[in-house]
Amino acid sequence: MKDESTICAIATAPGMGAIAIIRLSGNKAIDIADSVYKAPKGKKKLLTQKPNTVHFGSVVCQGNTIDEGLFTVFKCPHSYTGEDVVEISCHGSVFIQQQILQALTNSGARLAEPGEFTLRAFLNGKMDLSQAEAVADLIASESDAAHKMAMDQMRGGFSAEIGKLREQLLHFSSLLELELDFSEEDVEFANRKDLKRLIDEIHKVIQHLTDSFSLGNVIKHGVPVAIVGKTNVGKSTLLNTLLQEDKALVSEIAGTTRDAIEDVINIKGIRFRFIDTAGIRHTTDTIESLGIERTFSKISQASVILLLVDAKSTKDEIIRQIKELKLTKEQHLIVIINKIDLYNEAEIERKLGGKNSFAPYPILFLSAKHHIHTNLLHELLLETVQSQALQASDVVVSNARHYEALKDALEAATRASTGLETSLPSDLIAQDIREILHYLGQITGEITTDEVLGNIFKNFCIGK
Amino acid sequence: MKDESTICAIATAPGMGAIAIIRLSGNKAIDIADSVYKAPKGKKKLLTQKPNTVHFGSVVCQGNTIDEGLFTVFKCPHSYTGEDVVEISCHGSVFIQQQILQALTNSGARLAEPGEFTLRAFLNGKMDLSQAEAVADLIASESDAAHKMAMDQMRGGFSAEIGKLREQLLHFSSLLELELDFSEEDVEFANRKDLKRLIDEIHKVIQHLTDSFSLGNVIKHGVPVAIVGKTNVGKSTLLNTLLQEDKALVSEIAGTTRDAIEDVINIKGIRFRFIDTAGIRHTTDTIESLGIERTFSKISQASVILLLVDAKSTKDEIIRQIKELKLTKEQHLIVIINKIDLYNEAEIERKLGGKNSFAPYPILFLSAKHHIHTNLLHELLLETVQSQALQASDVVVSNARHYEALKDALEAATRASTGLETSLPSDLIAQDIREILHYLGQITGEITTDEVLGNIFKNFCIGK
Repeated sequence: MKDESTICAIATAPGMGAIAIIRLSGNKAIDIADSVYKAPKGKKKLLTQKPNTVHFGSVVCQGNTIDEGLFTVFKCPHSYTGEDVVEISCHGSVFIQQQILQALTNSGARLAEPGEFTLRAFLNGKMDLSQAEAVADLIASESDAAHKMAMDQMRGGFSAEIGKLREQLLHFSSLLELELDFSEEDVEFANRKDLKRLIDEIHKVIQHLTDSFSLGNVIKHGVPVAIVGKTNVGKSTLLNTLLQEDKALVSEIAGTTRDAIEDVINIKGIRFRFIDTAGIRHTTDTIESLGIERTFSKISQASVILLLVDAKSTKDEIIRQIKELKLTKEQHLIVIINKIDLYNEAEIERKLGGKNSFAPYPILFLSAKHHIHTNLLHELLLETVQSQALQASDVVVSNARHYEALKDALEAATRASTGLETSLPSDLIAQDIREILHYLGQITGEITTDEVLGNIFKNFCIGK
Repeated sequence: MKDESTICAIATAPGMGAIAIIRLSGNKAIDIADSVYKAPKGKKKLLTQKPNTVHFGSVVCQGNTIDEGLFTVFKCPHSYTGEDVVEISCHGSVFIQQQILQALTNSGARLAEPGEFTLRAFLNGKMDLSQAEAVADLIASESDAAHKMAMDQMRGGFSAEIGKLREQLLHFSSLLELELDFSEEDVEFANRKDLKRLIDEIHKVIQHLTDSFSLGNVIKHGVPVAIVGKTNVGKSTLLNTLLQEDKALVSEIAGTTRDAIEDVINIKGIRFRFIDTAGIRHTTDTIESLGIERTFSKISQASVILLLVDAKSTKDEIIRQIKELKLTKEQHLIVIINKIDLYNEAEIERKLGGKNSFAPYPILFLSAKHHIHTNLLHELLLETVQSQALQASDVVVSNARHYEALKDALEAATRASTGLETSLPSDLIAQDIREILHYLGQITGEITTDEVLGNIFKNFCIGK
């Protein structure tokens, strides 16, 4: 898959800006850059310049000056891709960007495929595969938590730990293979006790990582939340209040665009996505008579459900409503009595039988309209995530490909562990260990195929 | 207007990209960059680094690593703004861009106003005002000709020539002022013949420049073209054919966005904008009976009118249609007989009285549907612009502010020239010369006000 061509692409966001960066990478990057570079009088060609230096000059193509810009020279292996790289910083006109790309391709570069710069970084050993994948996650990250998770992964994350364990296992694996070569002589090169200890350690680490995936997924894509309840309990008001408070919290910085924040709120870096349960939110039917399969299927996708109930409801009525939601044990429910400004909170609480009437589900009294206790709702929402044992220092798996590989490795590790306990023949255990090695190697990219790489990098943006 | 603060902004196009550039400029640019820069082990602070060098490191804020990126250091006066500048190249996530801006402002930078980097470049003498204005034009340029015009202006263009003439005039002006101080002694420090020669030279240059404005305007904004004619003569087909041929000509480059090209075609770098004369194009009335004021007002905005006529029309009918268009002498008309595949071209030409029947307007036989002679239409459209004496080497004025100042300078030069011929008193001539100096000085920015600067730079994008 590695090729010797020199690739080029616009590396900055598409469209018009003050400046744009066009990146060249490959054996001939500096030569090709020189073919469009016209140095000011008394200055030399880029090829003679030191690495990591910046040079002002004109960008020329067939005698025409296209622009004036800065040329930054990086030399193999000290660059993003590990190859010779030149970055051309030009005026951010779409026309100029196109012209320069055209000039570079005329001089022998070719347009890069999506993710091709990062693919080259991986192939040249500048990063492992999970780090490369984190680059795309980092660029797409929209919240503090998602950003931190991608940063951790890009800077090594769990791949270092996995790499270390894998190396130790590789050692045992070769000893086991050696035993198999001498199988008729009944020797034991690999100490079974040490091997069992290592595999159990690996099992524990992998188990921990796979457990973190649901949290990682939630951080990456946001926590799906559904607001349900009878008509006129204030569902729209509650949603609007949450969105509005979020907008007020998030300071806007001129010159940056924010993606549509409609129906997404961000609490301490965690995103909560409000699933469109329009069928519930705007219906004039009561929740009891809804009976719409589609709506309940929507609710089943939520990991948090906010059930708004009327202050006049009895405890039994509320319990019936909860039952009708058919919650799974992974789903979180918060029972909310809205419009508390109109009622006596203590009285209603007494009527319903106290704060723990719907345990394990919490009950919350608030007024969406008057922003009373909405901060408590923020905290309860956050707890639904933290109850998944989020610890700032924890490594979290957020990539579905990694999760699949870890699950497969976990299965093989379970088999190997059991096999050692029950003294299974060495060749069967060796097979399980080979599988563990294989699946762990997939994560960091020691073991990969062109097809896997193609699938990973095709989702990158061009220029990365 | 010049201030000592250090400004920062995202310099690349808004939104998500592979990388983004955040630019810092001012006395404390390097200090502030150092406050968010964490060098790799063994590397030093940015402040100790040589200018025009690039340094890899982490971007940190309050102990948290926000990103890893490249820091490029430029030192006063060798930078775009003429101040100390640091460019931070980070991962192009909107979230990261915001975080870094926030970290920089926390460290004492403030967000830049639109165009503030270029304003500083102007205030620090890195470019004159007309060059600064050309930067914005360059970024917005969408065609070859508009791009070339902006490049010429940015690289000095006519401001060098104007500057030279202005300097010579300034010399005479001070001599004249001196004469006024000694007015009772009737001395003549300023040689009137030389002065007259200089003013006539200035007059000629300014006249040439003001004459170029209509062309400059057309290059910058495109040539407005209207297609008119009776129903069923093929107006829509002609427009579609032109647009379609243009789309085929313009090669698309992946990763760049093109602005809506609907109703704009690009012939050899000149843009032709088709004015929405829907009222004419889609009406079922004949052009004779249109009588809609609004439509004719649209036609009056066009500098080129394509009149499509039926092959069965008589010469008189066509002449009547032309008269009804009420063309001004600046407007160009091309009479087009469409659907020539269905008729005998020579026969119709004979019937209409030859190629020059509608002189000075050319007549063209074509078939829009079958792309016959549409290339000739391209040439005729291009000639309407070239007849305005476009010469590749010519300097062209495209900026309305410059045009106004040049017109005012021209008027004063005319008065001064006449004054010298008729031996007007020196104080009156001195006044006219002061006016010429004033208006020419406005173009390059020797004479300016905060208000003028404010108006110019507020239309820049942020980060430029």
